[in-house]
Amino acid sequence: MTDPRDTGLVLNPKYDAAGLITAVATDRTSGELLMLAHMNAEALAATIATREAHFWSRSRGALWKKGESSGHVLHVAEIRIDCDQDAVWLIVDAAGPACHTGARSCFFRRIDGDALSPVA
Amino acid sequence: MTDPRDTGLVLNPKYDAAGLITAVATDRTSGELLMLAHMNAEALAATIATREAHFWSRSRGALWKKGESSGHVLHVAEIRIDCDQDAVWLIVDAAGPACHTGARSCFFRRIDGDALSPVA
Repeated sequence: MTDPRDTGLVLNPKYDAAGLITAVATDRTSGELLMLAHMNAEALAATIATREAHFWSRSRGALWKKGESSGHVLHVAEIRIDCDQDAVWLIVDAAGPACHTGARSCFFRRIDGDALSPVA
Repeated sequence: MTDPRDTGLVLNPKYDAAGLITAVATDRTSGELLMLAHMNAEALAATIATREAHFWSRSRGALWKKGESSGHVLHVAEIRIDCDQDAVWLIVDAAGPACHTGARSCFFRRIDGDALSPVA
């Protein structure tokens, strides 16, 4: 139960079988959850080095800098990692909508029972 | 590009090959990201019905009510789902530390280059 990965101070991401960890981005000012995506080691290294969010696109099988085509870059103020080092939290300033639908956040619908309703 | 799952108002979670979606919990008051875990359909249904967070433990292969042994239940104020419906955001009031280490949040370390440093 005392895995050094859980409490130590060495970066040692626990990549899954596909070589990925989960990444969550929240807005630095509002705290809103903007998006959730995945990173391989290259995407994490690029994010740390450039302070702009990079992910691994599972659908395209390619490294992906968020905003590389739209310009909606996520500027990374801080990166945190969770206890078992299989998820990172990016605290960001977003240059535009985070969602491909044009919404500010990908999480633009609330679950009410079996239905969804839009949130402001 | 206009998948009704992305913009419609019908709950239709996109479970992965293991039958799971990703769930992220943030604190309703502070906005802090508390934890990230996974849900199967049963865990999502139980969370919607009881307004207390339930997850699927991949390590134990079992449904898991957060706080069932520790008492550190996550009371769910709101549930949102993302564009492609493979992730949910729980906005919660936590009855205690969310992390198994005793930390308030699982994300208690900041990445600084190759090293980690504790955050308050």
